Amino acid sequence: MPQVSLNQRELADLEMIASGAMSPLEGFMTEAEYRGAVDSMRLPSGVVWSIPVVLSAKTKEQERLKPGVEVALLDEAGNALAVMEVSDRYGVSQEYEAQMVLRTTDEGHPGVQYLRSISSVYLGGNIHLIRHPEHRDFLRYRLAPKETRVLFAARGWNRVAAFQTRNPIHRAHEYLQKCALEITDGILIHPLVGETKADDIPADVRMRCYEELIERYYPRERVVLSVFPAAMRYAGPREAIFHAVVRKNYGCTHFIVGRDHAGVGDYYGTYDAQTIFGEFDPQDIDITPLFFDHAFYCTRCGNMASTKTCPHGKDDHVFLSGTKVRQMLSEGELPPAEFTRPEVAAVLAESATKGGGA
Amino acid sequence: MPQVSLNQRELADLEMIASGAMSPLEGFMTEAEYRGAVDSMRLPSGVVWSIPVVLSAKTKEQERLKPGVEVALLDEAGNALAVMEVSDRYGVSQEYEAQMVLRTTDEGHPGVQYLRSISSVYLGGNIHLIRHPEHRDFLRYRLAPKETRVLFAARGWNRVAAFQTRNPIHRAHEYLQKCALEITDGILIHPLVGETKADDIPADVRMRCYEELIERYYPRERVVLSVFPAAMRYAGPREAIFHAVVRKNYGCTHFIVGRDHAGVGDYYGTYDAQTIFGEFDPQDIDITPLFFDHAFYCTRCGNMASTKTCPHGKDDHVFLSGTKVRQMLSEGELPPAEFTRPEVAAVLAESATKGGGA
Repeated sequence: MPQVSLNQRELADLEMIASGAMSPLEGFMTEAEYRGAVDSMRLPSGVVWSIPVVLSAKTKEQERLKPGVEVALLDEAGNALAVMEVSDRYGVSQEYEAQMVLRTTDEGHPGVQYLRSISSVYLGGNIHLIRHPEHRDFLRYRLAPKETRVLFAARGWNRVAAFQTRNPIHRAHEYLQKCALEITDGILIHPLVGETKADDIPADVRMRCYEELIERYYPRERVVLSVFPAAMRYAGPREAIFHAVVRKNYGCTHFIVGRDHAGVGDYYGTYDAQTIFGEFDPQDIDITPLFFDHAFYCTRCGNMASTKTCPHGKDDHVFLSGTKVRQMLSEGELPPAEFTRPEVAAVLAESATKGGGA
Repeated sequence: MPQVSLNQRELADLEMIASGAMSPLEGFMTEAEYRGAVDSMRLPSGVVWSIPVVLSAKTKEQERLKPGVEVALLDEAGNALAVMEVSDRYGVSQEYEAQMVLRTTDEGHPGVQYLRSISSVYLGGNIHLIRHPEHRDFLRYRLAPKETRVLFAARGWNRVAAFQTRNPIHRAHEYLQKCALEITDGILIHPLVGETKADDIPADVRMRCYEELIERYYPRERVVLSVFPAAMRYAGPREAIFHAVVRKNYGCTHFIVGRDHAGVGDYYGTYDAQTIFGEFDPQDIDITPLFFDHAFYCTRCGNMASTKTCPHGKDDHVFLSGTKVRQMLSEGELPPAEFTRPEVAAVLAESATKGGGA
């Protein structure tokens, strides 16, 4: 049986497909699914799906594989994880894919770089899992969609908001989460620990921050922390739609969309990832997006707020740039409690002084 | 033409009908509309409608009025405000109405008292307004549904949350409003200034509180203050549904439902006014209810929170009972800023020391 070695993104996608997180996808995309997703953000069935989930050929032989064959999908260590029935082999224009999905063909975009690093021949077809991708970290936090759904049901949660993040949770994001939690029954803090940019904070540091924060500032019975195994695409608006719709599979009813969700650099407008939801009938999205603005602590309000809820000026707002925070932390200095919970800041400072980021 | 003098509740209802706030009602309820509302919370058309909007006969002659006649509807000063084509005259069991709508027949309930004070013969039919009910107060805040809709459109608001209140806005309610505002484009603060219980705070004092609060703590461009001319029924859950669905006529998309909404005494469970929404298909309600729990300032969180978002104990929470607040205010003492904004407390204290309530 021919063997296809998966790269990190494909490995993450395989896990998402196998766990049901990518439902209704049952394999890597066929050509029709790919064209639908790229051209109109819909699968042929009409289901909203905004990004390609594809397997690229890894060799010239694979670029000539005939539909009908079965291939083994291997992880980086060479373990066979799944068998795929190749139903489609198709060539694509990666320029077009980049322009449509990423809204740019600029080489500075990590998604464009990724596309240039892979073959433009994709293999599609249903997969049959042989063994789950192996993980060594965050094992107690790796809940599959059916597990989170059971957990939410056991807790009696009817309304569950999901919060996606690839950063530590400062006060601003805690505030968004808690606003969402006030109008729901529970929150799923769902950090992405799949492939991210090299300058994002390491997942293990982030997880320690989340643990500290939840332990001290969240009611245990209202929050679930679980990792989201997807790889980042940095596709901004398109990825926000993807992040929202797949959370339905996890049993969530609401999805938090902040500023520049899943963005990178300045490729997307601040609110593009919110306004894109307006292109769909809410019933087609079928998960309620909760749009939030940038939040801060206002000394005159005496509480967290955003420009939507606070009339005061910047001088009254406790705001630090990412650069400033990184600088403070690397010097062992903690940001103010109005910006970052002291317990979270301590974790970040410990990591930063050892050479991590913030 | 026979003349029917309206009591305060009927006058408020007439204004609501005439302004379109009660749409699709075009008059006082016919028997079929009344039976539908009382028995199944639906008009014969299927539209959700949870409370009776009825005109009671005021004299023995009116109890014998024949369908087909026209009657003049008079305000308390004897001005003719509208003509009603009497299409229905029907007798009702007020015990049954009370049990169904108010969930009690206890005489201590103000809604039961009201029912016992009026005739059990109701007159129904479409109304034709001759002149608007006259108001001398809050004139700049009396926006009809079509006016709020125009205003929201002019501001570009697609998502508008309505907040109903008959009390001053302390920090707890400001917090609920701002949580709602974070996920919407604007908020309609819509205090009820129609008939309320004698021990509720006078509307003029409340309005001064709202003005102070908005002036200092809300972005002008994100809030509209307007009075809601309905009379209180104190019907708890049924009235929460009513309060929600009529806000659609004002152009609102979200409606805040706190604890014991529209309740009185201990006739309703704390969350009855929230759980009743579960009896309907959300599409039939067609306005998104936002359910909130009791909120407080938590000194350990350093922010407003509820038991859903704060894990700390009561000792960390700034909470004052209504009795305690009234006592402090009547002695000219201001509640802490974590409980009431100082500017609002000052208005209440000024009123309280002059003999008002809190």
